[in-house]
Amino acid sequence: MTKPLIVTFAGGPEGLWTIESITAVTGESLATAQRLAVVEGEAHHAAQSSWRLRGATSNSRYADRHEATNLRSQQEGLNRSRATMAALIPIRKTVAWWDLAQDERREIFEERSRHMAIGTEYLPAIARRLHHCREFGEPFDFLTWFEFAPEDAPAFDDLVSRLRSTPEWQYVDWEVDIRLSRR
Amino acid sequence: MTKPLIVTFAGGPEGLWTIESITAVTGESLATAQRLAVVEGEAHHAAQSSWRLRGATSNSRYADRHEATNLRSQQEGLNRSRATMAALIPIRKTVAWWDLAQDERREIFEERSRHMAIGTEYLPAIARRLHHCREFGEPFDFLTWFEFAPEDAPAFDDLVSRLRSTPEWQYVDWEVDIRLSRR
Repeated sequence: MTKPLIVTFAGGPEGLWTIESITAVTGESLATAQRLAVVEGEAHHAAQSSWRLRGATSNSRYADRHEATNLRSQQEGLNRSRATMAALIPIRKTVAWWDLAQDERREIFEERSRHMAIGTEYLPAIARRLHHCREFGEPFDFLTWFEFAPEDAPAFDDLVSRLRSTPEWQYVDWEVDIRLSRR
Repeated sequence: MTKPLIVTFAGGPEGLWTIESITAVTGESLATAQRLAVVEGEAHHAAQSSWRLRGATSNSRYADRHEATNLRSQQEGLNRSRATMAALIPIRKTVAWWDLAQDERREIFEERSRHMAIGTEYLPAIARRLHHCREFGEPFDFLTWFEFAPEDAPAFDDLVSRLRSTPEWQYVDWEVDIRLSRR
């Protein structure tokens, strides 16, 4: 586990990624934009961006030792040359979720929803990086970033569909699904 | 659980609290300062402050339902009129700590170190608010703020002494103890 990395996702006229679609899954959408810039490190001030979302990587909050070792052994990193498709999925969870104790959140997250177990089925094809932003006073609680090859796009659709049908997702009250590609 | 509150602790010429002492428990100290300002809400820019530490309240990471309910039923809030003494204890934990999985951290934190159980013994006399700052790119990982009446100062010394002797504290590689008072 390296130090937390602050990452800014800026939708606007510039950036490596072309925004293919922005879909409101639950709640409001975000403003349309042509491109997405992913900027690692301290706050990025792109004057022309349509919107900016900021979060930080952190330690895992739910994985036990066995799960953490299993995930690390199977997952691949970002920036693989064949992974020319990406998704940014900002979500916010309800007050009821944040009022739960650690054991209650863990039970819903994994024992009942199998969040990590489902994600593991799609490794190493779907690479993932989670950014926490609730403590930053940001509108969303989490920004999850995914990268995959075009041939794995159907598998990615399957992954998010399965997660959205879990008991955990009953605690999600805002979710936007942003799909991206790069040449 | 309310929304996270961003709090800035600024040591300098101004602020409600008089700094009585700054002691380096492990690692380097902080620069001397006369007073401490505790500013709730978005970033505070006190031009003259000697140092500024920033963190955010968040959900509990270890308390199970029974422990959370027990703590909430016994603890009192900040700003009690008789609580004219305070302590700000910034700590940083080691890379080894952050590399642990959730179940491993929980076992060290509570099963082996009894962190919450020890803290509960000093309720309601010692009021406490924890601020997370690792994800902010701040120098410390946590800023814990305590408030108590002068007659409870010996109990507070006892509390921190007991915590510092736990297995959990073997993962603390930087700790400063700042004592404060107000009239």
